[in-house]
Amino acid sequence: MTNNLIQLAQQLGETLQRLGWQVTCAESCTGGGIGYAITSTSGSSSWFKSGYITYSNEAKHSLLGVSEQTLIDHGAVSQPVVEQMALGAAKAAGANVAVSVSGIAGPDGGSAGKPVGTVWFGFAINGEVFTDGKCFSGDRHQVRTQAIEFALSRLLKLC
Amino acid sequence: MTNNLIQLAQQLGETLQRLGWQVTCAESCTGGGIGYAITSTSGSSSWFKSGYITYSNEAKHSLLGVSEQTLIDHGAVSQPVVEQMALGAAKAAGANVAVSVSGIAGPDGGSAGKPVGTVWFGFAINGEVFTDGKCFSGDRHQVRTQAIEFALSRLLKLC
Repeated sequence: MTNNLIQLAQQLGETLQRLGWQVTCAESCTGGGIGYAITSTSGSSSWFKSGYITYSNEAKHSLLGVSEQTLIDHGAVSQPVVEQMALGAAKAAGANVAVSVSGIAGPDGGSAGKPVGTVWFGFAINGEVFTDGKCFSGDRHQVRTQAIEFALSRLLKLC
Repeated sequence: MTNNLIQLAQQLGETLQRLGWQVTCAESCTGGGIGYAITSTSGSSSWFKSGYITYSNEAKHSLLGVSEQTLIDHGAVSQPVVEQMALGAAKAAGANVAVSVSGIAGPDGGSAGKPVGTVWFGFAINGEVFTDGKCFSGDRHQVRTQAIEFALSRLLKLC
């Protein structure tokens, strides 16, 4: 893990602890990397209780309550899906704050409309939801690292 | 992520794909790092559908069905708990194979009986369960990295 990620996770942890809030994560293309970063900080059990790695559509539906129709209509890598993932994760975990990620890390899976590097993010903050769509450059590892960094830094700004 | 981890994840993926098996993970002290490693391999959606980051005892119980009495009697970092975590994750995910981890990454949380670096691993392979207890040296990051490496290499041998 990069030093930047470790520092971001520590800053986020300090903020959450000050607010008395808990965070959860719902991860598709990052596959657990956000949870791994958050728990790099000692004492993170105070603000992080559980997270969901929902790689398949079925897991997004069964664990987070994402609508099957939304998955069909918009695809897993979409604004409506990350919105539902974030709200569903916050509810399932009983957390104040949730971050969700769904994207195409590559090298396969890209299309004209959604090229490799396309990543959608959802942030549920006490019931209010925010989303961002990004397109990162680089290989699979670089896309995933940038996605984790963006998720943590944006979450930090929203808290 | 280390090159060793990326290679291990790729070997594991090739093995699982050959067997037509699916894997899931139930992570406490590694916080998502095993899922992150497994999904570093392109095409991993064929053998990995979902994973569970169960950092708190409550999450171990509610998501994986670990008995509250077992958590009280043995503590979260114990052989009986990782056994139940692995079996519970395999069942919840409908996966052939599950790996579970619960340990004390430090720097806090150690005791005379369970020093920092103590990590228990569970492996459910088509309903049969195997466990290992290890005590790793090093700081929080080193303990977690060694735990992820051990989990993947042991899983590879068991498949």
